[in-house]
Amino acid sequence: MIFVISRIIIENVKPILNDGEKSIKRICGETVRVSADIFSHGHETVKARIAYKHESRDEWRHSEMKGMGNDTWEGSFTVSMKGTYIYTVEAWSDTFTLWLNNIAKWKEAGENIAPDLLEGILLIREKCHPRAENEIAELEKLLEKLENGEFKDPLDEISRPLIYGIITKNWAKDDFVSYEKELTVEAVEKARIFRSWYEMFPRSQGTKPNVSGTFRDCINRLPDIADMGFDLIYLTPIHPIGITNRRGKNGSKKCEKGDPGSPWAIGNEKGGHKSINPDLGTMDDFLEFVNKARGFGIDIAMDIAFQCSPDHPYVKEHPEWFRRRIDGSIRYAENPPKRYYDIYPLDFDTRDKEGLWNELKSIFIFWAEKGIRVFRVDNPHTKPFDFWEWILKEVKREFPDTVFLAEAFTRPKVMYELSKIGFTLSYSYFTWRNFNYEIMEYFREIESYPISEHFWPVLFTNTPDILTENLRVNGRPAFIYRAFLAATLSPSWGIYSGYELCENAGIEGTEEYLNSEKYEIKVRDWNSTGNIKGFISSLNGARRENPVFSHFGNTTFLETGNPNIVAYLRTYEDSSALMLVNINPREAHTAYIDLPPESLGIRNFDSYILEDLLTKERMYFHGNKIIITLYPEKRAGMVLVRV
Amino acid sequence: MIFVISRIIIENVKPILNDGEKSIKRICGETVRVSADIFSHGHETVKARIAYKHESRDEWRHSEMKGMGNDTWEGSFTVSMKGTYIYTVEAWSDTFTLWLNNIAKWKEAGENIAPDLLEGILLIREKCHPRAENEIAELEKLLEKLENGEFKDPLDEISRPLIYGIITKNWAKDDFVSYEKELTVEAVEKARIFRSWYEMFPRSQGTKPNVSGTFRDCINRLPDIADMGFDLIYLTPIHPIGITNRRGKNGSKKCEKGDPGSPWAIGNEKGGHKSINPDLGTMDDFLEFVNKARGFGIDIAMDIAFQCSPDHPYVKEHPEWFRRRIDGSIRYAENPPKRYYDIYPLDFDTRDKEGLWNELKSIFIFWAEKGIRVFRVDNPHTKPFDFWEWILKEVKREFPDTVFLAEAFTRPKVMYELSKIGFTLSYSYFTWRNFNYEIMEYFREIESYPISEHFWPVLFTNTPDILTENLRVNGRPAFIYRAFLAATLSPSWGIYSGYELCENAGIEGTEEYLNSEKYEIKVRDWNSTGNIKGFISSLNGARRENPVFSHFGNTTFLETGNPNIVAYLRTYEDSSALMLVNINPREAHTAYIDLPPESLGIRNFDSYILEDLLTKERMYFHGNKIIITLYPEKRAGMVLVRV
Repeated sequence: MIFVISRIIIENVKPILNDGEKSIKRICGETVRVSADIFSHGHETVKARIAYKHESRDEWRHSEMKGMGNDTWEGSFTVSMKGTYIYTVEAWSDTFTLWLNNIAKWKEAGENIAPDLLEGILLIREKCHPRAENEIAELEKLLEKLENGEFKDPLDEISRPLIYGIITKNWAKDDFVSYEKELTVEAVEKARIFRSWYEMFPRSQGTKPNVSGTFRDCINRLPDIADMGFDLIYLTPIHPIGITNRRGKNGSKKCEKGDPGSPWAIGNEKGGHKSINPDLGTMDDFLEFVNKARGFGIDIAMDIAFQCSPDHPYVKEHPEWFRRRIDGSIRYAENPPKRYYDIYPLDFDTRDKEGLWNELKSIFIFWAEKGIRVFRVDNPHTKPFDFWEWILKEVKREFPDTVFLAEAFTRPKVMYELSKIGFTLSYSYFTWRNFNYEIMEYFREIESYPISEHFWPVLFTNTPDILTENLRVNGRPAFIYRAFLAATLSPSWGIYSGYELCENAGIEGTEEYLNSEKYEIKVRDWNSTGNIKGFISSLNGARRENPVFSHFGNTTFLETGNPNIVAYLRTYEDSSALMLVNINPREAHTAYIDLPPESLGIRNFDSYILEDLLTKERMYFHGNKIIITLYPEKRAGMVLVRV
Repeated sequence: MIFVISRIIIENVKPILNDGEKSIKRICGETVRVSADIFSHGHETVKARIAYKHESRDEWRHSEMKGMGNDTWEGSFTVSMKGTYIYTVEAWSDTFTLWLNNIAKWKEAGENIAPDLLEGILLIREKCHPRAENEIAELEKLLEKLENGEFKDPLDEISRPLIYGIITKNWAKDDFVSYEKELTVEAVEKARIFRSWYEMFPRSQGTKPNVSGTFRDCINRLPDIADMGFDLIYLTPIHPIGITNRRGKNGSKKCEKGDPGSPWAIGNEKGGHKSINPDLGTMDDFLEFVNKARGFGIDIAMDIAFQCSPDHPYVKEHPEWFRRRIDGSIRYAENPPKRYYDIYPLDFDTRDKEGLWNELKSIFIFWAEKGIRVFRVDNPHTKPFDFWEWILKEVKREFPDTVFLAEAFTRPKVMYELSKIGFTLSYSYFTWRNFNYEIMEYFREIESYPISEHFWPVLFTNTPDILTENLRVNGRPAFIYRAFLAATLSPSWGIYSGYELCENAGIEGTEEYLNSEKYEIKVRDWNSTGNIKGFISSLNGARRENPVFSHFGNTTFLETGNPNIVAYLRTYEDSSALMLVNINPREAHTAYIDLPPESLGIRNFDSYILEDLLTKERMYFHGNKIIITLYPEKRAGMVLVRV
């Protein structure tokens, strides 16, 4: 026919990770907004759509894209099922619209459109082939009347909704092109991500000093933990602990009798990564704990640390899995100028790579078969990327719902790489972002494209390795506002036990706890004075009340007129919440906020009520300016929503 | 050996166009700064380099990259020869530095380093194999003494410059990886780009009203054009002009006797794209003109418009190259609601595609063989992208130095695409960017990554189709400052003749010239009162005096405190110039500039002299604040450089 074959260019498709080699991530029910530059030479009329499908389906689905100006096109689709979706962009020349636009212009310019109309009839006959009987009949009727010149205004006839609909629906997609790459998105169920983590040493859940707590003691703790609103308990390693070079109190090289050792020095004659430290109980005890926890709506996460104490069975059974020094001795874990004499790292490039890698995989599988679906992985950045890419894929193939949290505190790009090669969640720098500008800068970074497409942080207030100076020096008020920030800035947040008691005895100049639980058994009064369990409970409650807290991203920081205040709006679809928090642990400060137009779903600011989801306190406002004073402990942070 | 094999990731390599499918551009002598994210797991010590070579060479050259923090690496290489260079990024583990750093830390921590030293000796034996006799000997001497424990401080010995140099130079590149793509850069000689264009209708170079000027008249114009400092004359089409439906004065459909017709209605019984309009002279006359121009340092650019008048020989010889209407007639050029009855477009998708495309190629080749190396291509955006990609490559293969200028005033992304698929230069929106913020916004856009890597604008002040309202309404002062902007913002700038005379009689409400030269022969007094030839000459002179004007990009707009002033620093290597221009054609305005630290090569602003390259006026300054008043015509713009 008469139209030039156009060559449509599809470029700059987003979101895309590493040229399409890596998957972006979404929570089930979320949308993927896709944009692309789409254009052709000349005045061709282009149409475009997203083609997408769940990997388990054969048929592609389509979602229309719209031109947004400057040859940028946008569209979106929703990932409803868990698993991998494939998506790409398709475009074609809309020769019908081109013809219709042109003939309308000729007509308006007073040109003779008779030949153009004849061409149009031929075009329709060539390009439009409905399948439905009634559509075929309607179209035939139209064409006959057009050919017979029966219409006073043929263009009006063609533009009638019925006819126009039939034509556009059935028109051939000329010059059809597909973007050269098929991109992927991994959809994860919300319940796997939207979680409050409680990290604890099972051996410290007992009640007698210097006597190891057991899984039975852990069971006794469940009501308390559930009351605080936690739904995921992460246990430090539960395996037998090495004897050789065991560390004593405060990590001392000198170990006293009765010192229990670091749980990360895994393995002794009682077993390794698939065994349970007999001090904690039996496998049955463990499974009972897991089961009981489930009754409280709590899942159990395990710590996977791929390293061995010198007494681990692997050392004897597979000496070739370890690296050796020149004198033939096994190389200790080291991070110059430190050596860890209670730990042997594994040699991931051992000549028996297949044996080692498969054995490590079998550890995940072993615990997954016992019902564990959340693994916190210790120091993944000290093991090769390709190992993780392999093992995570292997485990997910058998247990697709498994969640892996990367405990990597290392350079940002290494952390981002880990989250691109299969880790579901990641530790973050949140712990060290204390000032107003640091907090804003960090969350702006991780919520910026393309990092936001794959990096999902779990915001921990503290860990057994990290008692920040802020917490150590400022105590309770700092514990309160740091929990507030963690709980409201990510669907996944957590504390390491003791935080609820504002434990802040540390070793000055370090981030170590004094008398760290890593090296001894602790017995705590879980209801000691000054605890913030009620506050934590209200935080976890607020998180369940508003959908903004179960999704990553969509945080907008507001100007506060005061560097001691952090203010941020978070939104998800139609929901929104305004967080105000005083980050000064010593003084009251006042926030001065101008609410952006229509924020919090308020169309006009004449008069409205906001409720603090933490205290249920209601405040009446007039105008978009909000001025609220926040205190160091009481009302340190507010979660304001429109009532 | 004992080191883990690291897996080094090389990502986010820049510059890159379309995933590496398109070439970036550089002028010979310029550098290409390459950056990449390069990292490995753990604490591996990475090294990286750029590998690059001219396509005509077999051997790769290397340029070291440096870590800039946050795992970003940067390096650069220079493209000295014209043609295509290939570049990529390589990285490897520097196991020697890793060992040396670690052992130094052990030593400082007071650990026993004897075994580490032994390992180091083994490492050196395994990884370091010099070829030079003296290096082999030195290394052997070192190793023997190390083994015999002869050194008091072995690390000091190894760190001695001679030894350290031998070791690092000859150390094996462990875990060597290459970026997966080979990227390309097209290097173009400066002389082909750094040009001042003078567009003219040869038929208007005569002296008698209504009598076509000839190439002989064009020869007579050369001293005048050369005096203004132009070094490239671009001729509107010089071919026989169609008779059928020829347009009359001001584009009228009614053609009077004697009307010469639009030169873009190409072809009549005297010939087509390879023929010369006999009114202008013979081929020999043309070649004499080309030759004489060269004597003035002026090259000739031709206009290539792939379209035909109804009288073009192709119409009879190759009727299949044209598109037909339903009534069998050939389809006119059209842009609804307009039809151009004096022009037939070609059907680039004709069934005789091979025949048509090869014939069109032969047009370029025909004129290239006559010595033409610059082609201004008419409306390339109305022809398919793949046609241009093919034909430009074909012509460049035979005549590698050929420069193609895309006359595409269309959507930005289409213009960018054309410049990515082989056009050397492009028309731009400059003509319509009149206000301070418009100018800054536009140049920031085209100088931003990645557009700056390939889009090279020729800044025309006017064209036969574009007499802007600004010029039409404001006259001479506007002509002056627009020329200033064009000449100082790109190595390639140009005027359409008559601009030097400030011709501004236009048709209100359009951008058409009144009595446009497109449809009639003009005879001008080239020295009429009010001409700005002297000013243009000083602009072109200033351009030759400072290297900033012969390179694209590197423009920094400065705050002026006055929207009527545009101020910009341009730099290239060690050169720099400060441009100040008053864009108000009616009033004087004062610029208030704070010179950034060390700009214009001034290390301290105690006392310095700036010279205006246009007037040679010198001004003395103290401090970095510059306050200068600019007038509508006299001193409308200044090119300030440090003396």
